[in-house]
Amino acid sequence: MFKTVLVANRGEIALRIVRTCKELGIRVAVVHSTADADSAAVRLADQAVQIGPPPARQSYLSIPAIIEAARLCGADAVHPGYGFLSEDPDFAQVCADHGITFIGPSPRVLSALGDKVHSRGAVVGAGLPVLPGSHTATSTAAQAHAVAEHVGYPVIVKASAGGGGRGMAVVDDPRELAGAFARTRSEARALFGDGRVYLERYLGSSRHVEVQVLADRFGNVVHLGERDCSVQRRRQKLLEETPSPGLSSCLLDGMTGAATHAARALGLTGAATFEFLVEKDVFYFMEANCRLQVEHPVTEMVTGVDLVREQIMIAAGEPLSFGQDGVAPRGAAVECRINAEDPERGFMPTPAVIDAFVPPGGPFTRVDTHGHAGLRVSPEYDSLLAKVVVWAPDRAAALRRMDRALTEFRIEGEGLRTTAGFLRQVLDHPAFLAGTHSTRLVEAMLGRPGDRPEGQ
Amino acid sequence: MFKTVLVANRGEIALRIVRTCKELGIRVAVVHSTADADSAAVRLADQAVQIGPPPARQSYLSIPAIIEAARLCGADAVHPGYGFLSEDPDFAQVCADHGITFIGPSPRVLSALGDKVHSRGAVVGAGLPVLPGSHTATSTAAQAHAVAEHVGYPVIVKASAGGGGRGMAVVDDPRELAGAFARTRSEARALFGDGRVYLERYLGSSRHVEVQVLADRFGNVVHLGERDCSVQRRRQKLLEETPSPGLSSCLLDGMTGAATHAARALGLTGAATFEFLVEKDVFYFMEANCRLQVEHPVTEMVTGVDLVREQIMIAAGEPLSFGQDGVAPRGAAVECRINAEDPERGFMPTPAVIDAFVPPGGPFTRVDTHGHAGLRVSPEYDSLLAKVVVWAPDRAAALRRMDRALTEFRIEGEGLRTTAGFLRQVLDHPAFLAGTHSTRLVEAMLGRPGDRPEGQ
Repeated sequence: MFKTVLVANRGEIALRIVRTCKELGIRVAVVHSTADADSAAVRLADQAVQIGPPPARQSYLSIPAIIEAARLCGADAVHPGYGFLSEDPDFAQVCADHGITFIGPSPRVLSALGDKVHSRGAVVGAGLPVLPGSHTATSTAAQAHAVAEHVGYPVIVKASAGGGGRGMAVVDDPRELAGAFARTRSEARALFGDGRVYLERYLGSSRHVEVQVLADRFGNVVHLGERDCSVQRRRQKLLEETPSPGLSSCLLDGMTGAATHAARALGLTGAATFEFLVEKDVFYFMEANCRLQVEHPVTEMVTGVDLVREQIMIAAGEPLSFGQDGVAPRGAAVECRINAEDPERGFMPTPAVIDAFVPPGGPFTRVDTHGHAGLRVSPEYDSLLAKVVVWAPDRAAALRRMDRALTEFRIEGEGLRTTAGFLRQVLDHPAFLAGTHSTRLVEAMLGRPGDRPEGQ
Repeated sequence: MFKTVLVANRGEIALRIVRTCKELGIRVAVVHSTADADSAAVRLADQAVQIGPPPARQSYLSIPAIIEAARLCGADAVHPGYGFLSEDPDFAQVCADHGITFIGPSPRVLSALGDKVHSRGAVVGAGLPVLPGSHTATSTAAQAHAVAEHVGYPVIVKASAGGGGRGMAVVDDPRELAGAFARTRSEARALFGDGRVYLERYLGSSRHVEVQVLADRFGNVVHLGERDCSVQRRRQKLLEETPSPGLSSCLLDGMTGAATHAARALGLTGAATFEFLVEKDVFYFMEANCRLQVEHPVTEMVTGVDLVREQIMIAAGEPLSFGQDGVAPRGAAVECRINAEDPERGFMPTPAVIDAFVPPGGPFTRVDTHGHAGLRVSPEYDSLLAKVVVWAPDRAAALRRMDRALTEFRIEGEGLRTTAGFLRQVLDHPAFLAGTHSTRLVEAMLGRPGDRPEGQ
């Protein structure tokens, strides 16, 4: 087992990883920027290394600073969390070069899945259904037209190196294609230094459903069921739940089976998530993430599996301690992301100092948070303040429990707004309650149905 | 269903009950003394009624004040929590007289079980094994001698109206019996206004194991497994867990079966707990509590059942929504009671003002607490500040998780001491880790093996 794990992240996820390391009896160190010197993860870790000023490029995204921190604490493994360097093949390679275990997939797998048009081809080879579209990068407007005519309008033009909802355009009308194609290419060059784009059919109304997979180094692969992440705005998830409401067991069996098969075919190890779009009982692969997801606690709540523990055990070369028969999801779980954002102003971040912070508690309620009274919510970082996760025997009871938990969450600070109130409106929305909503729900609630790239 | 439930309690348990009422969509009101005007339960309830000054006799134990509060809020049901009036047959009767549902057993059952010597007879009739001892109140020293000779020394002399570890004496030597008998009788008269005492064989080293039962008004009875509460001092539990380590499944099956049968035979309804002493694979009935127990969350964690919800549904006349086959405990759960007490000074309460209060969180960790920075811990009330409850797939992982959770719990205040550090020592004690400890563990750790009435 590892002697010291270095957590190369911040916020709630750094704390999450510290907790499991402590429970495993592994010495744990964390890196931190000067802005995070007083964080909960720093307080609870066995060692903390300051790696730079607040801007992430000079701290949490600085590979040399993190490698130096690993050397300082004698870390033999690095857990990258999510975001930052968690999917950076160069970081994984540099860790390997320094004899440090990167708790995640190999640099080869990260490279393959990080390139969208490439991964589209790879997953087709691994048996996953993809949306009709380009099989390679589309270099000319004429090629784009040919693909669009073939798959039918509307189509979406996407940057191959894109992510986070940027570098994409939806096209309804053939006459708009050439312009959108040129704009997306130049945007992709500007944002990602890579102008390659590709086309896919655009689904106007779909569900975002993902499958959690665990794979060890001995070819054992299990899935831990699905998560429905359809409540989102601009590809940022706001609420996640399991099981996915209103989906047939045939569809779910097909999706979990396809994900398990693909994980094996692609040679993934560790924790991986296959994201799908679901439309009318058909599912299409969207992307694979070989890292911990923000929303992993809902899976933990229903399965009883500590996903961070499994990541660490797999990275340490252990075989999975259970097979598919050992996974028995129970009940329903929901997570709400409490962000320091103003839903009334397009979810604009609201940096502030927190004056009062009393998270909810009680039965079947879990809160993952680095928040506390006195915390300065920095504009430098992600606006996620807390994840409230509840469990109940069924979805209806879980939604009521979540509403109770959100009601009692007290977060105050001058100028601070959070997503908690908006999420209570979601919990009360007829389509959401019925489980018939799509990824367009939030835009529909805000009366802005025109924001189309949502959810794809 | 009830329109308004009044919570006739305070602290963490008032908050616990408010939470479930909210989740059920029932309007909920709480009573409070002037000391608790700013409590979390008051803040979260739909209505709060101040019923008197801090001393419990003038507030939480005042039946007229609580009945008046119920009238004020239009409450059609009262949840008494634990302690205070929760086992008072007069309170249950006055509620009934006012047309208010007492969420608990009938006054008749409360009377029968509240009298120890009477309940001893009743449970024998219901098929439960009791420790060898008196079958009726023992009125003379000569009778006491006869019983003691029959059951063998050591014996324990107990007040029939006793509770909370008071009104009892252990006797090793026949020559000490007459004196102990006289002292216990006069102590019982002074403390409880009832001088009746009885004798039982005294178990020097045993485990405290209890069975959680739910019974509806239609004769349906299920058990939800056992809780081991052997870590205690002066009959006050400090740490509880399920399943009970090191007990054979035969013994557990016998105990759960006996408790289920007895609940049916005694005509109990609602949530009830049968407490047993276990010595060398034999179990003896100790007492039955027809109310929520402090340690109920460990049962909730492994079964997924919300016990407060079940109490309310049963009191409202609903049948149980599941049978014994529907109860499938999973994994292991542990609860630690974080009291404002100084373990180094005999667990003496340490009233104080809390300056910093950051409870633990994260995976499989539940905290039930009314604590917050600024709270004045009053000497008037119970010293319980928080219950930390964790779940894991097995006991060893649960104990490591608890240690992690206790380590991160930050409670500070001038003069404030808590049980958290002592409980971490328990978690590290070889006998506790091996599951071979008895109710004498805490006294042994503190080097005071002479405190004998412990655990009985």
